[in-house]
Amino acid sequence: MATRLSVEAYVEGVLSGNRLILSRAITLIESQLASDKILAQTILAQILPHTGKAVRVGITGVPGVGKSTFIESFGTLITQQGKKLAVLAIDPSSQRTKGSIMGDKTRMEVLSHDPLAYIRPSPTSGSLGGVAHKTRETMLLCEAAGFEVILVETVGVGQSETVVKGMVDFFLLLMLAGAGDELQGIKKGIMEMADAVVITKADGDNRTVAERAVLEYQNALHFFPPTQNGWLPPVLTCSALTQQGLSEVWQMIQQYANLTHENGFWRKNRQTQNLDWMHTLITQALTERFYNDPSVKTQLDEVSNFVKNEKWLPSQAATFLLNLPVF
Amino acid sequence: MATRLSVEAYVEGVLSGNRLILSRAITLIESQLASDKILAQTILAQILPHTGKAVRVGITGVPGVGKSTFIESFGTLITQQGKKLAVLAIDPSSQRTKGSIMGDKTRMEVLSHDPLAYIRPSPTSGSLGGVAHKTRETMLLCEAAGFEVILVETVGVGQSETVVKGMVDFFLLLMLAGAGDELQGIKKGIMEMADAVVITKADGDNRTVAERAVLEYQNALHFFPPTQNGWLPPVLTCSALTQQGLSEVWQMIQQYANLTHENGFWRKNRQTQNLDWMHTLITQALTERFYNDPSVKTQLDEVSNFVKNEKWLPSQAATFLLNLPVF
Repeated sequence: MATRLSVEAYVEGVLSGNRLILSRAITLIESQLASDKILAQTILAQILPHTGKAVRVGITGVPGVGKSTFIESFGTLITQQGKKLAVLAIDPSSQRTKGSIMGDKTRMEVLSHDPLAYIRPSPTSGSLGGVAHKTRETMLLCEAAGFEVILVETVGVGQSETVVKGMVDFFLLLMLAGAGDELQGIKKGIMEMADAVVITKADGDNRTVAERAVLEYQNALHFFPPTQNGWLPPVLTCSALTQQGLSEVWQMIQQYANLTHENGFWRKNRQTQNLDWMHTLITQALTERFYNDPSVKTQLDEVSNFVKNEKWLPSQAATFLLNLPVF
Repeated sequence: MATRLSVEAYVEGVLSGNRLILSRAITLIESQLASDKILAQTILAQILPHTGKAVRVGITGVPGVGKSTFIESFGTLITQQGKKLAVLAIDPSSQRTKGSIMGDKTRMEVLSHDPLAYIRPSPTSGSLGGVAHKTRETMLLCEAAGFEVILVETVGVGQSETVVKGMVDFFLLLMLAGAGDELQGIKKGIMEMADAVVITKADGDNRTVAERAVLEYQNALHFFPPTQNGWLPPVLTCSALTQQGLSEVWQMIQQYANLTHENGFWRKNRQTQNLDWMHTLITQALTERFYNDPSVKTQLDEVSNFVKNEKWLPSQAATFLLNLPVF
């Protein structure tokens, strides 16, 4: 185990933008050791006043849509403006694959050598809830370290998009053109979460197909009612190859930021996200405590079977289990 | 308060299809009194073996789409086949209006006089979770009383569609034609929940508009990937006025039932719904117990403000609150 520094060393290092210390602080966040957790929380509490100033953008799309390529090109556009960019990832399946396939520096060669960019793979241990929690905390550390734009990418596993949506300011959905009528395996509900749809690989022979897809998706998006923030999600095209469309994506995000800062939605959304995070942590802790109780554990499978086979009412089962724990 | 009968009287009455006793049993389910709750649970446990055999259909759509008219006509089609039909409703807003506007017998004159139909307004007290729970239990009572088809209607308030979706076998979305491109205020995500879309008022001058709407919605639905039950949600039209399309809706539901009984999805879905119900009740009880704890109650507002204003980390706040309760 690497040596742990003092709280002050971590805090000063992060606030001065020292990447090595930032990386070590994030590793601390991801650690399961009780002593590390205490240290991590102390550091986070101290850097908290220095957070909140970045633009947080979530990015999703099916494997093959070109997320890494997009992030590489889009990220470079951002750093070329002199902005520091952090790239994080939420990939709950990464424990099963050989490490995370996202945030993989070998897939973002240029960006990984960009002095203004910082790429961190997804945390690999734990449930989606645990990974989300660590990513939120990592985001805070990056913001305290001066990163002005934070990209959080995810691939469509389980509820990961919903979770990313709950921690970002803007949610970008990348899609392919000409992949047939079906939504390329995009899970129900994702399209509506999007603040914009960007059709990738709109170059060469694919350009016409891409333009046609714009109309199709605009049509589908048109079916959803206006949101509470007054923003109508647009459909854009881009090509990481020709660089076409990338600055338009960034401009659009800035437009969104301006609109929602002005109408108060940006701030309100952040407040709601923070409160929801608190309530989520509370509910998680309560149910974890409950389902880990030995008396509940021994009975759960049998009781669940009674419920599945309609021998017990769900309410009977719940009452029975709730009365088991000693404390 | 009306006299309470014995458990046996309720059980026998319900099982023999006695409507008066069924109504009294449902009133018991809806009661907040502790003694009534105990009685209710005892009754439910005893009738449980006689439940599960109905086809449960959820119905939603914006106000003005003609839900009551549809249910009246569709319901009559069902009773004309000699099937007993129960019509329930989930309307969490009913406490604010003069009683529930749904399940209102004055809006379903014919059906309310149909000897094979039974209409019950939405429970009026409590949260959406509470209303949903009571409706599920009411459904069980109706099934034990021999009702073969159960319609659960809801209007788009909060998460009520999601909740209805979680307790029915088939979810029907009623829509208007020619109401403009926007999805008539249908909340994001509802369309994808639907197992079928039925365009109402497809008569007279509106017929052509309705047929065009079919294509539009088929297009939008086509955007969603096939579900795990192998069913592709169709778009139909109907007119309560001319009765056109109603028997097709019923045939479609039967097709769905056949398909999903055969491929096992029907049973699997019921099992999942029952288990989810159990887990929901557990989580609700745990969080209720927590947030009702006096030491938590006194601190919650202040702590929430610290979180909203980013003075405290959500995790700090959660840990602080979780350590407060005495037990």
